[in-house]
Amino acid sequence: MVAEKRPLFNSSSPSKTMAILIRGATVMTANGRGETLQDTSILVDGNRIAALDADNHFPVPEKTEIVDGRGCVVIPGFVQTHLHLCQTLFRGLADDLELLDWLQEKIFPFEAAHNDRSMYASAMVGIAELVRSGTTTILDMGSIAHEEEVIRAVGDSGMRAYVGKALMDVNDAYPKLKEPTKDALRSTRALAERWHNSFDGRIKYAAAPRFVLSCSDELLVEVASMVKSTPGMMLHTHASENKSEVEAVRKRCGMENIEYLHHLGLLSSSACLAHCVHLSDHEIDLLSSTQTAVSHCPSSNLKLGSGIARIPDLMKRNVTVSLGADGAPCNNSLDMFREMRLASLLQKPAHGPKAMPARAMFEMATIGGARALGLQDEIGSIEVGKKADLVLLNLNHEWNPLLAGGDLFSSVVYSASPENVESVMIDGAWVLRRKEFVTIDKEKILRDARGELTSLLQRVE
Amino acid sequence: MVAEKRPLFNSSSPSKTMAILIRGATVMTANGRGETLQDTSILVDGNRIAALDADNHFPVPEKTEIVDGRGCVVIPGFVQTHLHLCQTLFRGLADDLELLDWLQEKIFPFEAAHNDRSMYASAMVGIAELVRSGTTTILDMGSIAHEEEVIRAVGDSGMRAYVGKALMDVNDAYPKLKEPTKDALRSTRALAERWHNSFDGRIKYAAAPRFVLSCSDELLVEVASMVKSTPGMMLHTHASENKSEVEAVRKRCGMENIEYLHHLGLLSSSACLAHCVHLSDHEIDLLSSTQTAVSHCPSSNLKLGSGIARIPDLMKRNVTVSLGADGAPCNNSLDMFREMRLASLLQKPAHGPKAMPARAMFEMATIGGARALGLQDEIGSIEVGKKADLVLLNLNHEWNPLLAGGDLFSSVVYSASPENVESVMIDGAWVLRRKEFVTIDKEKILRDARGELTSLLQRVE
Repeated sequence: MVAEKRPLFNSSSPSKTMAILIRGATVMTANGRGETLQDTSILVDGNRIAALDADNHFPVPEKTEIVDGRGCVVIPGFVQTHLHLCQTLFRGLADDLELLDWLQEKIFPFEAAHNDRSMYASAMVGIAELVRSGTTTILDMGSIAHEEEVIRAVGDSGMRAYVGKALMDVNDAYPKLKEPTKDALRSTRALAERWHNSFDGRIKYAAAPRFVLSCSDELLVEVASMVKSTPGMMLHTHASENKSEVEAVRKRCGMENIEYLHHLGLLSSSACLAHCVHLSDHEIDLLSSTQTAVSHCPSSNLKLGSGIARIPDLMKRNVTVSLGADGAPCNNSLDMFREMRLASLLQKPAHGPKAMPARAMFEMATIGGARALGLQDEIGSIEVGKKADLVLLNLNHEWNPLLAGGDLFSSVVYSASPENVESVMIDGAWVLRRKEFVTIDKEKILRDARGELTSLLQRVE
Repeated sequence: MVAEKRPLFNSSSPSKTMAILIRGATVMTANGRGETLQDTSILVDGNRIAALDADNHFPVPEKTEIVDGRGCVVIPGFVQTHLHLCQTLFRGLADDLELLDWLQEKIFPFEAAHNDRSMYASAMVGIAELVRSGTTTILDMGSIAHEEEVIRAVGDSGMRAYVGKALMDVNDAYPKLKEPTKDALRSTRALAERWHNSFDGRIKYAAAPRFVLSCSDELLVEVASMVKSTPGMMLHTHASENKSEVEAVRKRCGMENIEYLHHLGLLSSSACLAHCVHLSDHEIDLLSSTQTAVSHCPSSNLKLGSGIARIPDLMKRNVTVSLGADGAPCNNSLDMFREMRLASLLQKPAHGPKAMPARAMFEMATIGGARALGLQDEIGSIEVGKKADLVLLNLNHEWNPLLAGGDLFSSVVYSASPENVESVMIDGAWVLRRKEFVTIDKEKILRDARGELTSLLQRVE
């Protein structure tokens, strides 16, 4: 199959005329039983996995691209459930600050200075980084404007995404970055109507009130109702990231943050809350009983000095925990390998070295992310009938050799890095092939990103 | 210059017949004033930096290899002050265990099963990983036998190293891995006599009592005296890594671990102690007043559930803090970029987001490591007269773009990874050139590592 550039703003993906067969690979299925299949072939037909079996145990269509998978480890694409593509340009421009200062002094003014071109450039350079490090599905929160440029970048690149503009009708810290409640709701409705389930379902919409402190009660209540009435729509917000934020919410609302979200009807299995670092036991109960998912962002939580989330406690209460890199300026990377490894290591001093073992982290990064987005029947594992979001790894490098007897989960979680990613397929189409982008012009997006950032910084000053 | 394979067990490096000029690079000097020089050329003559200036402001010898440094960021090679090359083969074979179990059940039996060939293979595959991720100097602790194979690998590869066999004359946990006190001391003396300051000073010796619990008082006292009487010899040991270890030391010795090392005369500016996670204020005072260096190993400390070291407190008391990846089975990587980033992020929740900023981490990873080894006048920064240990980075990748206005320290510490390493020079000679090893046969060492590990595991079982 020769991969085609996807058309701009055409809400369906190009039809796939040829099947793809990956032969003789090692397949880490993430199928819930921890199964790893040896010498296994994967047949991709259209955008789905049509067969998964020992080599040649199933019929192969006549016109099929054959990929030699020997020596290759195939994993489900990573699912990141909290990102801000709109911030990718700001990497390295907002270091060593606490959350509320970081927002007020840097991120809000930068976001407010975006135009359509800089937003597209920011999203594209972030998507390129995500793809080449094995992430195939994201839950992204935009800024208050230019959201269609994020959607365009997701569409062009072939990424799978829940997207949503940030909703902010309160902003005492930086009044330029907010909009009237009605405008916020109207534009969210319009975007959702146009783009939710577009591109063959590859793009879906997540209503995204930024956090309690940036939203009126009216906005939050309306958003909850919109999500409830729209099948497949997600609610995406930040919650309980930082002590000052939690105190400010308590002061304004007279309740704990998660309690307040519950009080207004925002908690549900359609909601994914980023961070959840500072939680009471009661709040963990609320997340559990409402089946609300958590997006754990360990690098961001450390870098902003926010704290260490109570992930083992959440998992004990069967809360769905997934992972996200957050934005480039508070990480400063979008690499899921780093998040998996850190999320595991970080809990071991308090919970012992057996806590958060490699297999659990691998599942958190794949099927866990899918569950957080309600997509567990479509993506997140390698099983017949699921969408073909696949990452081909080469684990035989001098810097991370998988020698005799090594454990694959350990190798992927504790040792691997984006360098091990050889090829990436999303929705049955190659997006990275032998380390070369298929749908992304790398030199152009880097050039554009530099130019657009230079202009944007002039607009800030 | 055509790089030559270094001769085995020839205690001098091949003479460098040609100078090397890196032209027009960005140079992060780590010179103590945080200086970064733009459009600067570095002239390497023999094994030293002969000139460092704006391009063409100094005479260039007739026969000089010219390297285009434009677009390149040159940093001093990283200095890792705690490694176990003897354990590289065991990566992924000892996960999710606490220190003392990890040693008794896995690492001691594995180490005891080494032979000369497996030891060389283990060291070589570790050195390859170190070089290609920008580390040019190491402080390594071997096992109790086959130390000359580690030395041979260091010699062959061109790495700069303090090496030392582990000293263990007590081992109740795994009695096969120990030796009589006299044999331990005699072999250390013989190794030091033969190899300390060999290879033009590229290899030096570090006497390495493993930790208090594996050593008799007699051994520790004799080692302290040996180090005191041998100019340039280091003392390298583990200390206060884990709570159970600290309690066992208290029980055996009636003192805190660091107090006990001081009591026996082991603390000095020639000593580098790995870990130092569990320290009292009084012990920090002792490290400070004796000018003893600490090797901080954040990944290892998390993975073994040991804890988070009090690094900001040590730095406030002017203790020299450096970084190390420790062994492959407790990390599971030897990548200094990961350690720098983690060492910074890890302290921020307790000490605030401004703690451990990027520049301080960059210095800890370079000149800080040199100071810990007493080599601050020879390596660790890019200054005229210093040994030429240089790493050339390409920071213009799609996954870590250094866009307009970005901070270089942030880019190297928070975002970069081994992928950014293009070329590595140690002691004035290329060891990695445009991502290709010069002194290491990558395919061969990987093949050997696999074969040797398979045999070694059979010897264990």
